[in-house]
Amino acid sequence: MRCGVDIGGTNTIIGIVDDKGKIIDSDCLKTGKYESAADLTVTIAYSILRMAKVNQASIESIGVGCPNINPGNGRIEKAANLNFKEAVSLRDEFLKYFPDTPLFFENDARAATIGESVYGSAKGLKNFILVTLGTGLGCGIMHEGQLLEGELGMAGEVGHAIIHPGGRRCGCGRQGCLEQYVAANGILATYRETCLRNGEQARAEDYHALAELARQGDSTALQAYREAGTTLGIALANMACFSSPSHIFLFGGVAQAGEPLMAPAREAFEKNLLFCYQGRIRLEFSGLMHSARNAGILGAAALYRR
Amino acid sequence: MRCGVDIGGTNTIIGIVDDKGKIIDSDCLKTGKYESAADLTVTIAYSILRMAKVNQASIESIGVGCPNINPGNGRIEKAANLNFKEAVSLRDEFLKYFPDTPLFFENDARAATIGESVYGSAKGLKNFILVTLGTGLGCGIMHEGQLLEGELGMAGEVGHAIIHPGGRRCGCGRQGCLEQYVAANGILATYRETCLRNGEQARAEDYHALAELARQGDSTALQAYREAGTTLGIALANMACFSSPSHIFLFGGVAQAGEPLMAPAREAFEKNLLFCYQGRIRLEFSGLMHSARNAGILGAAALYRR
Repeated sequence: MRCGVDIGGTNTIIGIVDDKGKIIDSDCLKTGKYESAADLTVTIAYSILRMAKVNQASIESIGVGCPNINPGNGRIEKAANLNFKEAVSLRDEFLKYFPDTPLFFENDARAATIGESVYGSAKGLKNFILVTLGTGLGCGIMHEGQLLEGELGMAGEVGHAIIHPGGRRCGCGRQGCLEQYVAANGILATYRETCLRNGEQARAEDYHALAELARQGDSTALQAYREAGTTLGIALANMACFSSPSHIFLFGGVAQAGEPLMAPAREAFEKNLLFCYQGRIRLEFSGLMHSARNAGILGAAALYRR
Repeated sequence: MRCGVDIGGTNTIIGIVDDKGKIIDSDCLKTGKYESAADLTVTIAYSILRMAKVNQASIESIGVGCPNINPGNGRIEKAANLNFKEAVSLRDEFLKYFPDTPLFFENDARAATIGESVYGSAKGLKNFILVTLGTGLGCGIMHEGQLLEGELGMAGEVGHAIIHPGGRRCGCGRQGCLEQYVAANGILATYRETCLRNGEQARAEDYHALAELARQGDSTALQAYREAGTTLGIALANMACFSSPSHIFLFGGVAQAGEPLMAPAREAFEKNLLFCYQGRIRLEFSGLMHSARNAGILGAAALYRR
């Protein structure tokens, strides 16, 4: 059995997977509850050991997807969306509990990209981009079947491309990053700004409540999604200029908002694509979208295959 | 001997190169004088045949660097900075005169990237980006020693990333493309807008005159370069997020403006780099910068090595 751990800004999902890619057991922790990497890891380790025991499974490898991690050494320097901002080696933390198990670490979005390639809609595709929209915006770029890592193992950090110099403050310490306009907190900020402009009382405390308002047809909430979708569509058209993919897949909690976000995103994407790409790049939802929980586990569990 | 042809928006440069990378002979045409690909190609062919005869050289291969070309089939669909907008096969044109010579085609900026890798400052580097600043903005992305081509052979068209939705009109038919703010005509447009705002008479007819004004210390010209440099620095910081390079090299006629452009570009680049890249990506001039003419020839001539 393989183990996959997906550490996200909101949830940490842990699962064990058989040789056919079937998830045998899984568990979920609230990432925000843990103040340090050590606290989080001990709880993850307990969960893995418990699942292994209950299912009488021997764990052949553990793959961990995590924001801002260096895949080479398993170090997190400063994760914008995690509580623990200090530089820390997640590999060292895991080694305390699993000294003899092969360990693999990867940026969460890049792990999801491998998951899409192995289990999802990108099977057999050589050039595609996966964009994860959740607490932040993550991205994995597959080029000729090879996942872009780059010199520092940090390729695909396009959530932190600056689209509005001097704009909204980001957890990374800078201003105007893409994710501050199209990921969960960004859409919430747009909603609040719109309410303020309209002299309305904001009716959503957090992103979850905003998504619910949009589902109920609240016009201000829908307007916030429309603005985010348009910005996202232009950003995706710009990404296409960089690596010339055949497909772009969207994934994650925010992508699950569906058409209120996707209709303007698709429109802005096609309108803003450079002529040589027009009609030639498919913008789709991830094939693992029906179960974000499973996708995170599968991507992380598949890391041993790299 | 190898032949290299570099078709740029302003000049087309042709040269023959020996096995050691020494340029034996070269020639230059004004690209804008030719209304069709057929007209341009016949003149290039004449030049190659003349040089081969004068130097008693046998041409083993011809490499052609050209904007917007598909390296797979040698077709240009619609080049924003060339007169001939109709779709045309440059390969078919060259085959008329060189039916038995191996022919290689590549986007001009990607050819320059190979030239930088083989003959310039990027020798031995695995992950770097080359940005060419001239009539337009071109880009080649080297990742783990492999040049990004992408599904459509069109990777690196970041000059057409939209940075100001609804902004300046671009030759590609859209609005707000990066090159309209940081390449030659973009800086000229900024200069003219600044003059208008200041109630000054614009004193530069074209980019060449503007560059001369800046050299003489004209404060409005210098302000235009400063604005362009800041925009360029942010754009380069955003590119770094995509592929995580160790180096970014700048090349081309506009980069030769030197410090008036580079000082604000460097400042904005470092300021806007995501923390995990700060101090870890070198922004430098191309090693072939001292001779743009030679660099274009060498990049194109080196294409047979791919």
